[in-house]
Amino acid sequence: MIDFQTHPDRYRHWHLAFDGPVATLTMDVDPDAGLFEGCELKLNSYDLGVDIELADAVQRLRFEHPEVRCVVLCSGKAGVFCAGANIRMLAKASHGHKVNFCKFTNETRLAIEDASANSGQVWLAAVSGSAAGGGYELAMAAEHIMLVDDRRSGVALPELPLLAVLPATGGLTRLTDKRLVRRDRADVFCTTEEGVRGQRAVEWRLVDEVVPPSAWDATLRERALSLAARSDRPADAPGVALSPLQREIGEDGIGYSHLHVTYDRAAHRAEVTLMGPDGVAGLDWSLLLARELDDAILHLRLNEPALGLIVLRSQGDAAAVLAVDELLEARKNDWLVREIRLYWKRVLKRIDVTSRSLVALVERESCFAGTLAELLFAADRSVMADAATLSLSALNFGAYPMGNGLTRLATRFLGEPDSFAEARQRMGETLRARQADALGLVTVAYDEVDWDDEVRLLLEERASFSPDALTAMEANLRFAGPETMETRIFGRLTAWQNWVFQRPSAAGDAGSLKRYGSGQRPTYDTERV
Amino acid sequence: MIDFQTHPDRYRHWHLAFDGPVATLTMDVDPDAGLFEGCELKLNSYDLGVDIELADAVQRLRFEHPEVRCVVLCSGKAGVFCAGANIRMLAKASHGHKVNFCKFTNETRLAIEDASANSGQVWLAAVSGSAAGGGYELAMAAEHIMLVDDRRSGVALPELPLLAVLPATGGLTRLTDKRLVRRDRADVFCTTEEGVRGQRAVEWRLVDEVVPPSAWDATLRERALSLAARSDRPADAPGVALSPLQREIGEDGIGYSHLHVTYDRAAHRAEVTLMGPDGVAGLDWSLLLARELDDAILHLRLNEPALGLIVLRSQGDAAAVLAVDELLEARKNDWLVREIRLYWKRVLKRIDVTSRSLVALVERESCFAGTLAELLFAADRSVMADAATLSLSALNFGAYPMGNGLTRLATRFLGEPDSFAEARQRMGETLRARQADALGLVTVAYDEVDWDDEVRLLLEERASFSPDALTAMEANLRFAGPETMETRIFGRLTAWQNWVFQRPSAAGDAGSLKRYGSGQRPTYDTERV
Repeated sequence: MIDFQTHPDRYRHWHLAFDGPVATLTMDVDPDAGLFEGCELKLNSYDLGVDIELADAVQRLRFEHPEVRCVVLCSGKAGVFCAGANIRMLAKASHGHKVNFCKFTNETRLAIEDASANSGQVWLAAVSGSAAGGGYELAMAAEHIMLVDDRRSGVALPELPLLAVLPATGGLTRLTDKRLVRRDRADVFCTTEEGVRGQRAVEWRLVDEVVPPSAWDATLRERALSLAARSDRPADAPGVALSPLQREIGEDGIGYSHLHVTYDRAAHRAEVTLMGPDGVAGLDWSLLLARELDDAILHLRLNEPALGLIVLRSQGDAAAVLAVDELLEARKNDWLVREIRLYWKRVLKRIDVTSRSLVALVERESCFAGTLAELLFAADRSVMADAATLSLSALNFGAYPMGNGLTRLATRFLGEPDSFAEARQRMGETLRARQADALGLVTVAYDEVDWDDEVRLLLEERASFSPDALTAMEANLRFAGPETMETRIFGRLTAWQNWVFQRPSAAGDAGSLKRYGSGQRPTYDTERV
Repeated sequence: MIDFQTHPDRYRHWHLAFDGPVATLTMDVDPDAGLFEGCELKLNSYDLGVDIELADAVQRLRFEHPEVRCVVLCSGKAGVFCAGANIRMLAKASHGHKVNFCKFTNETRLAIEDASANSGQVWLAAVSGSAAGGGYELAMAAEHIMLVDDRRSGVALPELPLLAVLPATGGLTRLTDKRLVRRDRADVFCTTEEGVRGQRAVEWRLVDEVVPPSAWDATLRERALSLAARSDRPADAPGVALSPLQREIGEDGIGYSHLHVTYDRAAHRAEVTLMGPDGVAGLDWSLLLARELDDAILHLRLNEPALGLIVLRSQGDAAAVLAVDELLEARKNDWLVREIRLYWKRVLKRIDVTSRSLVALVERESCFAGTLAELLFAADRSVMADAATLSLSALNFGAYPMGNGLTRLATRFLGEPDSFAEARQRMGETLRARQADALGLVTVAYDEVDWDDEVRLLLEERASFSPDALTAMEANLRFAGPETMETRIFGRLTAWQNWVFQRPSAAGDAGSLKRYGSGQRPTYDTERV
């Protein structure tokens, strides 16, 4: 089982150090602690296990360290910043693992970008040695990239010439859309194994500055403090410890404190039920539920690939959920409330890009209100029972933008802006099924007499379709409207990488991934498609 | 050999009729005239051959019929509008053929949309019978969709449940981005084999109106005339006949009147040389060259898949090219000049989405000026010799937007808007290599002494890379900046469809395409990726 829960005490690959407003995160991958037997993680190359620790560090820095305003990302190994994803791991891994690995690493990089943009915790990449492939993309996730000008250190995306796959997980898109590198230079860069160093790296906008070795330490400190000075994070607030999740993982499901997952393996289905805030203080409940939902989704992705259908249910007091939303809205300038909102935003985005069919069932006693109602809009279908209700809160209208920059409701109503305005007017109301249906907030509403049959038919029908075709269809239908670097990475680049990942030139027995390091040249299919 | 040249006299599948400002294009596919042996084209299903005729009709309507202001698209078969792409053909075709077929059909639909949007020739789909899959997408390409309300006629995208592939070539994106269908309704629609008819089709924005059979003919005429009334096309101008291209196709290349293509098969390379307007009247030359370039690109795509590298050269008098551009700019409100410009726009877009590496060589005696200079900005790399020159014209700054809605120069300079402004200021100047390089207009400039070696190395290196990885990389690097329905179809949806097209659930021996119509259910890989 791949476990997404970890703690700095158990890190094998990263080291965190704190100095007032500046934290330093040092990558020092233990070659012998890889996730796969026989895949030695040389030269700070990484596998999913390394990235799980990174994601944990990103998360704890935000919640446990309100005083940290700048995070310096550097390498603990001489001569190498990071060599990117481990190739032997990629060659051994199943198609599904490769795809989910790329997805998760990219979500982690986006979480770093989210911290810089929205959390007052700005990341600074201090590149000394070679940053290649995913290693350079890790640096690109930072707000500012410093490169030491020592005639050896440089940045590269060598995947195409070396491995016949696409750079990193979102490497091409970060080049063109974030760093705004001219396309023919990007083409030269991505086809040059040895990459680019020194002043040319600045001219081509691949890094923000090169610094001579003699001035490195002083400049690094200066940059870190100057980035930290932009932040509004409190210097003296206590952090919130992310204590271990209470979790029971069994053959038939997972139990958390406020979330239950049960599997119906024969039906290829996982049923996820979210529980309202009974007894637990509002913000604590909100943060805990976000953590549990996040963990459950990641667990299903990596450990339960045959459960293609996720049914979303909720249970509890809708008024209590709305009360928490009121708190989250009223205190949104508080650093911790901001972090909780930003975390829900990321969890909901993670659901958006999860390649499972999502069906939300709004039943009697459910509490799909405000934040939890976002799940209805994230789902591919939402079905409401006559006796159920749902409610919207202010948080449905801005707190949780999708990757495309719009809220789920705005995306839903791109073709009918009046419906969006009307939904906003009904904020706070307890909406019955007929009203929710008329407002376009659910896909369909059923009478009690029809409910069981209709839901059963829907779930059975969904499970009968080609899982691949559903993955591809959902990836397209979920993201209407504008595109951003983020939607491009998941919608466009990922699709091409997935395509390349199953072509003989890369994945075949004589393909590049299998032959890498063997001394034999790979064989390519010479026909262009 | 697949030939993209045809003529209404030779059509097997379409019929054109003219009535003043309204033309009627009737689809009546000859089941026995398919491109592949043994693939009977039942129920107005189509293959590439059917679409080649459609593309020809779209083109001739624009050039040969200035008086036509509205094109009514209908079916000549009772009970069926169009059943979409032929499944047996899809099951038999190679991966490369499927991908190129989808690309071309979509370019044809975009050409229809371009006619409605920019040419004053508005398309109206008159759907009687079932419009399914690619058949419904064909209707969606029209500006207005009428559906007869006869309890039988309807629209559907049944590919996912029926065939385990994605709808049509751009079906999902036209649903969400053009028709702005709500995503959960789109999900229901795309998983419902029988589709949607009657009033619900209007409510869900799948069609624009339903019309009772009794009012059909009168309403159709009324709509056609009212769409025609919006047009500014001249009623009495003579059309321009698109006479047969003079073309010699040989084993080692193709010769046209103003374009030469030579193959170096061992090097996986086609060298394309465009000739300036020597002697031929400016507009005639421009139209002819666009037609020849279009035909050559399509020929290379479908008939020469192993020539992965296209080298672009030009030869002629740059001043003469600029003089034609001046004409194209000064008379841009003339219907014919408008058509020529719009055609160049489409040809250049076709090059943008051609999955071959494009290298432009700017040599002494070349005439990369204005319109022809667009090829440098369409190329993945452009290399300029010291002794060569190039020039920009007004047409580089607006006439030829890419699929993303920006000009190639604006896309190129997204990260350096000053360079864009500077290039505009140098419009009309004869720019030498050092200047062009400094302005960022070419990738690199070489001295005469280095030229041969550098170019040889570049071309050899390119040919050594994985063709698949290049296809995927180029599809990403060529389109920075904003996204449109068009870029999404090619960049996102196509990539997912290509992925699905090689997965066992669709393309395997027990997959959906192979088992379609056999009575046996396909076997799906149940793991989600």
